[in-house]
Amino acid sequence: MVAGLISIALIVVIAFILRNVTHRLITRVVRRASSGTGNSLALRLRGRQTVEPEGLDAVAAERRRQRSETIGSVLRPVSSIVVLGTAALTVLDRLSVPIAPLLTSVGIVGVAVGFGAQELVKDFIAGMFMLLEDQYGVGDVIDVGAAVGAATTGTVEAVTLRITRVRDADGRVWYIRNGTITRVGNESQGWSRATVDVPVAYTADVPAVRKLLGEVTDEIWNDPEYRDVVIVEEPQVWGIEQISDTAIVFRISVKTIPSCQAQVARELRLRVKAALDRESITIAG
Amino acid sequence: MVAGLISIALIVVIAFILRNVTHRLITRVVRRASSGTGNSLALRLRGRQTVEPEGLDAVAAERRRQRSETIGSVLRPVSSIVVLGTAALTVLDRLSVPIAPLLTSVGIVGVAVGFGAQELVKDFIAGMFMLLEDQYGVGDVIDVGAAVGAATTGTVEAVTLRITRVRDADGRVWYIRNGTITRVGNESQGWSRATVDVPVAYTADVPAVRKLLGEVTDEIWNDPEYRDVVIVEEPQVWGIEQISDTAIVFRISVKTIPSCQAQVARELRLRVKAALDRESITIAG
Amino acid sequence: MVAGLISIALIVVIAFILRNVTHRLITRVVRRASSGTGNSLALRLRGRQTVEPEGLDAVAAERRRQRSETIGSVLRPVSSIVVLGTAALTVLDRLSVPIAPLLTSVGIVGVAVGFGAQELVKDFIAGMFMLLEDQYGVGDVIDVGAAVGAATTGTVEAVTLRITRVRDADGRVWYIRNGTITRVGNESQGWSRATVDVPVAYTADVPAVRKLLGEVTDEIWNDPEYRDVVIVEEPQVWGIEQISDTAIVFRISVKTIPSCQAQVARELRLRVKAALDRESITIAG
Amino acid sequence: MVAGLISIALIVVIAFILRNVTHRLITRVVRRASSGTGNSLALRLRGRQTVEPEGLDAVAAERRRQRSETIGSVLRPVSSIVVLGTAALTVLDRLSVPIAPLLTSVGIVGVAVGFGAQELVKDFIAGMFMLLEDQYGVGDVIDVGAAVGAATTGTVEAVTLRITRVRDADGRVWYIRNGTITRVGNESQGWSRATVDVPVAYTADVPAVRKLLGEVTDEIWNDPEYRDVVIVEEPQVWGIEQISDTAIVFRISVKTIPSCQAQVARELRLRVKAALDRESITIAG
Amino acid sequence: MVAGLISIALIVVIAFILRNVTHRLITRVVRRASSGTGNSLALRLRGRQTVEPEGLDAVAAERRRQRSETIGSVLRPVSSIVVLGTAALTVLDRLSVPIAPLLTSVGIVGVAVGFGAQELVKDFIAGMFMLLEDQYGVGDVIDVGAAVGAATTGTVEAVTLRITRVRDADGRVWYIRNGTITRVGNESQGWSRATVDVPVAYTADVPAVRKLLGEVTDEIWNDPEYRDVVIVEEPQVWGIEQISDTAIVFRISVKTIPSCQAQVARELRLRVKAALDRESITIAG
Amino acid sequence: MVAGLISIALIVVIAFILRNVTHRLITRVVRRASSGTGNSLALRLRGRQTVEPEGLDAVAAERRRQRSETIGSVLRPVSSIVVLGTAALTVLDRLSVPIAPLLTSVGIVGVAVGFGAQELVKDFIAGMFMLLEDQYGVGDVIDVGAAVGAATTGTVEAVTLRITRVRDADGRVWYIRNGTITRVGNESQGWSRATVDVPVAYTADVPAVRKLLGEVTDEIWNDPEYRDVVIVEEPQVWGIEQISDTAIVFRISVKTIPSCQAQVARELRLRVKAALDRESITIAG
Amino acid sequence: MVAGLISIALIVVIAFILRNVTHRLITRVVRRASSGTGNSLALRLRGRQTVEPEGLDAVAAERRRQRSETIGSVLRPVSSIVVLGTAALTVLDRLSVPIAPLLTSVGIVGVAVGFGAQELVKDFIAGMFMLLEDQYGVGDVIDVGAAVGAATTGTVEAVTLRITRVRDADGRVWYIRNGTITRVGNESQGWSRATVDVPVAYTADVPAVRKLLGEVTDEIWNDPEYRDVVIVEEPQVWGIEQISDTAIVFRISVKTIPSCQAQVARELRLRVKAALDRESITIAG
Repeated sequence: MVAGLISIALIVVIAFILRNVTHRLITRVVRRASSGTGNSLALRLRGRQTVEPEGLDAVAAERRRQRSETIGSVLRPVSSIVVLGTAALTVLDRLSVPIAPLLTSVGIVGVAVGFGAQELVKDFIAGMFMLLEDQYGVGDVIDVGAAVGAATTGTVEAVTLRITRVRDADGRVWYIRNGTITRVGNESQGWSRATVDVPVAYTADVPAVRKLLGEVTDEIWNDPEYRDVVIVEEPQVWGIEQISDTAIVFRISVKTIPSCQAQVARELRLRVKAALDRESITIAG
Repeated sequence: MVAGLISIALIVVIAFILRNVTHRLITRVVRRASSGTGNSLALRLRGRQTVEPEGLDAVAAERRRQRSETIGSVLRPVSSIVVLGTAALTVLDRLSVPIAPLLTSVGIVGVAVGFGAQELVKDFIAGMFMLLEDQYGVGDVIDVGAAVGAATTGTVEAVTLRITRVRDADGRVWYIRNGTITRVGNESQGWSRATVDVPVAYTADVPAVRKLLGEVTDEIWNDPEYRDVVIVEEPQVWGIEQISDTAIVFRISVKTIPSCQAQVARELRLRVKAALDRESITIAG
Repeated sequence: MVAGLISIALIVVIAFILRNVTHRLITRVVRRASSGTGNSLALRLRGRQTVEPEGLDAVAAERRRQRSETIGSVLRPVSSIVVLGTAALTVLDRLSVPIAPLLTSVGIVGVAVGFGAQELVKDFIAGMFMLLEDQYGVGDVIDVGAAVGAATTGTVEAVTLRITRVRDADGRVWYIRNGTITRVGNESQGWSRATVDVPVAYTADVPAVRKLLGEVTDEIWNDPEYRDVVIVEEPQVWGIEQISDTAIVFRISVKTIPSCQAQVARELRLRVKAALDRESITIAG
Repeated sequence: MVAGLISIALIVVIAFILRNVTHRLITRVVRRASSGTGNSLALRLRGRQTVEPEGLDAVAAERRRQRSETIGSVLRPVSSIVVLGTAALTVLDRLSVPIAPLLTSVGIVGVAVGFGAQELVKDFIAGMFMLLEDQYGVGDVIDVGAAVGAATTGTVEAVTLRITRVRDADGRVWYIRNGTITRVGNESQGWSRATVDVPVAYTADVPAVRKLLGEVTDEIWNDPEYRDVVIVEEPQVWGIEQISDTAIVFRISVKTIPSCQAQVARELRLRVKAALDRESITIAG
Repeated sequence: MVAGLISIALIVVIAFILRNVTHRLITRVVRRASSGTGNSLALRLRGRQTVEPEGLDAVAAERRRQRSETIGSVLRPVSSIVVLGTAALTVLDRLSVPIAPLLTSVGIVGVAVGFGAQELVKDFIAGMFMLLEDQYGVGDVIDVGAAVGAATTGTVEAVTLRITRVRDADGRVWYIRNGTITRVGNESQGWSRATVDVPVAYTADVPAVRKLLGEVTDEIWNDPEYRDVVIVEEPQVWGIEQISDTAIVFRISVKTIPSCQAQVARELRLRVKAALDRESITIAG
Repeated sequence: MVAGLISIALIVVIAFILRNVTHRLITRVVRRASSGTGNSLALRLRGRQTVEPEGLDAVAAERRRQRSETIGSVLRPVSSIVVLGTAALTVLDRLSVPIAPLLTSVGIVGVAVGFGAQELVKDFIAGMFMLLEDQYGVGDVIDVGAAVGAATTGTVEAVTLRITRVRDADGRVWYIRNGTITRVGNESQGWSRATVDVPVAYTADVPAVRKLLGEVTDEIWNDPEYRDVVIVEEPQVWGIEQISDTAIVFRISVKTIPSCQAQVARELRLRVKAALDRESITIAG
Repeated sequence: MVAGLISIALIVVIAFILRNVTHRLITRVVRRASSGTGNSLALRLRGRQTVEPEGLDAVAAERRRQRSETIGSVLRPVSSIVVLGTAALTVLDRLSVPIAPLLTSVGIVGVAVGFGAQELVKDFIAGMFMLLEDQYGVGDVIDVGAAVGAATTGTVEAVTLRITRVRDADGRVWYIRNGTITRVGNESQGWSRATVDVPVAYTADVPAVRKLLGEVTDEIWNDPEYRDVVIVEEPQVWGIEQISDTAIVFRISVKTIPSCQAQVARELRLRVKAALDRESITIAG
């Protein structure tokens, strides 16, 4: 009897100790993981300083805090349930209460739900690693690939353990289950590249076109509105990319700050068109 | 004997207490989740105030109530069955009734049905999270992607835990199992963007076209029928989007209230065509 | 001995009571589900009153009765087998007959067949929910999407719990397993929309074309053969839908009674062509 | 001892009774299913009376007999193995022979083979239902969809529980596992529809073309070689089906007896071409 | 002790008897299956007598022998292992040797390998049925469909239970796992059909072209090098198959001996081209 | 006690004997399989004697040795672990050490890893059979089909049980898991066929073109640089392969030694072009 | 009692010994695997000496160290948990603490998570083998194929056991789960090949074009800026690759150091275009 009571007390004590230890472990592991990627986050945000210069450090810190909070808020109750549930079963067993029927019905429901819920678990695990690896955060422009039909690219509006909410260019809000994202492309890290293809007719004078394109890129590089503000490296004329069906295609490559490639490409096209018109060089369709 | 009766009584009492606790837990969790997203719902509905201005708050509250009702009506009986079934088994066991044959036949049927039913469970779990996260509601225009064949876009007519009923533009009513929707795009939240591409001939005078398009967008922005009623931000001419096979393509972007992008785009095309005709600028196919 | 006999008698009695209770439960649940959707059925059938006006109420009632009959005829024997099988096993166990070998061989066959049969169970579950939700019935035109190859659209000829029989426009009879239908589009509910695209040359006078199309739609709306008989709402000219490769495309939208959109669209095309010819406006391919 | 012998005798007797009962049940269920669909078979075969008029009733009866034979020849030995195997195990157990090792090795082989064989079981189950539902028989032209690559359409040469043998138009003999057919289209039931699209130039006189096509369809309908022999309903000119890239497309629809749509369509094309040539109306490609 | 020895002896004897019975059963079943399809094989080979007339009966007999040999060589050792393994376990159990650890480690390895090996088992089962049903043999031209990428058609060089070796027209040798072939088309059974499409210009005189094509097919049918040697039925001119974008397409159909359709089609094209040139009828691309 | 020691000794002895027997069995089976396919290897290598004539027999022997080495190096440790692990468990059991906890934790890890590792096992099994069947070796040009995206064709650089390393024509080195190769095409066995299509204008004189192509193929066949060195059979002109949209297409077929088809095709195209130019026959695009 | 203590002590001692042995084994196996592929790594890096000549040996050694570190850091804690967990369970068992409830709840959670986590395990296993086989490292340009949508090619930025981080040409950073990469192409090993296709008009003089292209390739091969710096083998003119729809296509092949093929191809196109212009040979689109 006494031995029984002692063992029950022991079980309860050990359970609570274990639960606390697990909670601390989770908190510490998550926090370390977050700060571990904190540098790269800072690094990354610096890249777009010029466009969104409001309180970067606060943003990074807040984001890190939120991430560990989100993960912890799911892992902690799960670990509590496991540890305390085990303790309860052991105590019931010690008290000679039959636990087989309980296990049976829980087991049947567990198997019935388990198969259906495996996608849910997959989503949560995927979401946890996404957060831990800081693959993307609110405000990033990401490409989540195509699930079925067309690919989805847009700005992240929210990230939870289960879903990522993305708003695409047409204003459509996508709810994407994390487990269905096999590959994610983040367009807001470090730099982006604008690639402008200029098709000219077969009869065009190749060296002349090349020189002209070089002048256009020099001009935009020396434009104080673009240099070091939007464009981060001297633009390059890559030469003849393709001898296509209908034209000789030249390619210009420009490294910009993240997510500004479309804007720079449009500006470049305008300037190239103007320059070609000035020199009466025919664009070929 | 007495110990047996006491233990049976205890089991029954604990079972009913547990059942009630579970029901309340479910009610509270669901209600909290619903009100948690209630704000964003209000926020969202405000976006289309101008088009459907009848009793928004009532709609939002009703929707919230329905959501928690729908989820609760499935979770509550399930929890009752689990708790009371376990209690019944335990009592039978206490009364020395052999429960192995019962478990066996239930188990065989369970496994036989389990595999086939896993899609059903998947549908219910998907539906529950959709409702909790309030991804869409009756009246929203959603894009559920392509299952097989063409994609489906339409207006939500009904949402249950298992299926979503959507009516597409041709009047076809689609019954879509929630578990087969891996990614859903809601076109009725916040804003939509109309994108109008204007192809002009290679010989067109680029700055002149740009100026003309700017005038057209100014005009529609200053039209009291559109400004702040349908169009929510000043329209922008994005410049040369593409030097295509046959034309120089200009792009105009207009932010509208949700689901009005098609209407605005058509109006813009009419006005752009008229303006180009006035200035005798050739559209290129 | 006496205790044994009593327990056996008890088992048998409880089994038969349980079986009857289950049968009644099934009957009631199915019937309630059927009448629950009965309203919407009535509502739905009203939509096509004009085309098939023979005894709608009788049709709806018959359909409801058949549905509950079909579902019940599968669920009832299954529940009987489970309940009585369990009772038989318990009695055998009470009589000290070893039931392990029996369970073993049934289990081996069960597992062997189980994997292969899971698609069968899936079909039945899908069919049951289809019937309960009254997604479609005999005579409806449905689009079951593409399984592999081209999509299948046709008229439902028969619905069983396992398969749906559909006859497509070419007279081909399709047997489709219910479990393979992830998404079904019913074209016979409420209304259909005919969308007619009219491509005119770039040089066409846009306002004149628009006015002309308006006249054509007015004319068909005022035609007593169509108004309120086939067409259920005033037709609309939606304006320039697209500035395509070769033409300016106008779109006309007409809401019709279910499944008559093709017929209306053909009539409209005839009238539009005649009108354009009268005004000597060039159609562009 | 005596009790043991009695119980063994009892087991053996029950086993053989059970086996016989099962065999009869199988025979009766299969026969009833066959005759249940027998009518529709007769109905169906009547549709092609004119083309293959040799002994329809004999064919139908033979087909029904073969179907129940095929299904019974698989189900009967399986049920015998299950019932007698269980009896053998029970007797061994009664004789105190240890059956655990036997079950173990059978179980290991069973699991090892089970996963691989599940497609086999799937094929057999699919085949059984196909036969019971009489989806198609030898001589029918069926479309089994595309597994991988191009779709397969051809004449059924043989149906077994595992595979269907189909010969396509090029003389290729396809062996198709029944379980891989998710959707089958039978072109030999009731009627087929020939759809002939006639593209005419934009400049064509629409009412004149329509009248001319009407004359052509009248002529073929009044041709004693076709009316009620091959064509089963008066042909219809459906009007302008499409205003395509290059032409105005008229559609003619003709209901024919099963599998004769291609022949009728070719004849119609010949007659339409001749008629258009007579009236000097230009066909547009 | 004596009882133990007797039971062990009994086990060993029964095991060996069982093994022999199983081997004979396998041999008989396989042989019967082989001879059962032997007729159809003979029938089939007769179809190409004219092209490969060397010792058909020997070939058929050899093929039948090889088939039963191949299947038996896999099934026999498997059955031996099962029967003798069970006997060994039973003897060990009788000798009070603990077999639980043995079963455990075999079980762990079994499960570990089982999942990975299920494709292997699938291949063997598929191969066994292919051989039993004699779907194809060495020398046949088969179309195994596309696994990923382009479809594979070629001549069978070898068939084992696991793979089929096929050499395609480019000399590439394909190793195809039998389990990945969901559908196989055999081009070497009975007959093949050559289909030659002849596109003529819209302005062509349809009856004249038809008569001309009839003369060409008559000519080839009366050519002693083709009639009954390569062509097995009188060729047919099917009429206007299609009114395509650019031409009126006539179709000619010729039934040939297996695998000679390409050769006949080429000859026909040559003769048709010559005839059209003679009559100055324009081919339309 | 003594009995216990004896049984332990017996277990250890049997275990080591079993392990040795298994190792020898593996070695013998693998070696026999290797030499069994050795002939065909020799045969195969002979085919390209002319291009890589360095020490074929040594290569073949080395390859055979490596193959059996690779397979043995994986199978031997696995069999040791199984046999000795079982023996260890049995000894522990004999010593009354509880092995249940050990089995439990190994089991949990096993299941956890098992699902994830099944692809690994699949790769190894696929690799083993590939090696045993000698499907390809280092230096062969193989086509492994498309996994996702474009197909991969290249030269094998290394084959292990898990992956195959292939270098494609662009110098890209592909690491392909053996289990993902469902179908492999080996282009280095026996012969390859070069197929050259020659499109000529509709107006071309068919017999003249045919004669000219015959002269070109005769010429290359009589060229001592090609005959029996690169080309292994007299080239054939197959006649009109297609009456395409824009041309009459003639096809020439040449059998070459493995992997030289591209080189021969290029040479043929050069010669055909020259011949057509000489005769002023127009090539049609 | 003493026996119990001794056995517990024994268990603890054996557990720690086992754990250490396992750790050392892991370290040694991983290190050996790393150094085994070290040579090929050195070999590989030598290939691009000319472009990135900074401290190759240090890079290779560092990479090798990192690889073994990464793998060890995951395998070591896992093995510790297994060994010590087993020991803990055994000790608990010895102390008569009931471990069934513990196993039960761990088992339920294990199964629940197991299904969802199998992709995680797959990722880790794939990552481990990738690292062991040194398929790619930081700085390599790899082609990971298409998961869904377009293929991804880019420069590796980081490799962990779970994911590979790749930055593509547009600056997008891709996070790719290792388990989803079925086939990876490394473009940074040994050499790359630039293939330049030159389309010339049908009327071009083939031998003249060939000679001209030969001169261009000679020139670039003799250019000290390219020979042995970027180009590693004499370029080859491969002759007529294709007689396409619109042109005769010549192909030039150049072997370059890894990842420089695009740059060389562009230079070649420039020089070829200039040479053709000099000789007035028409390029055909």
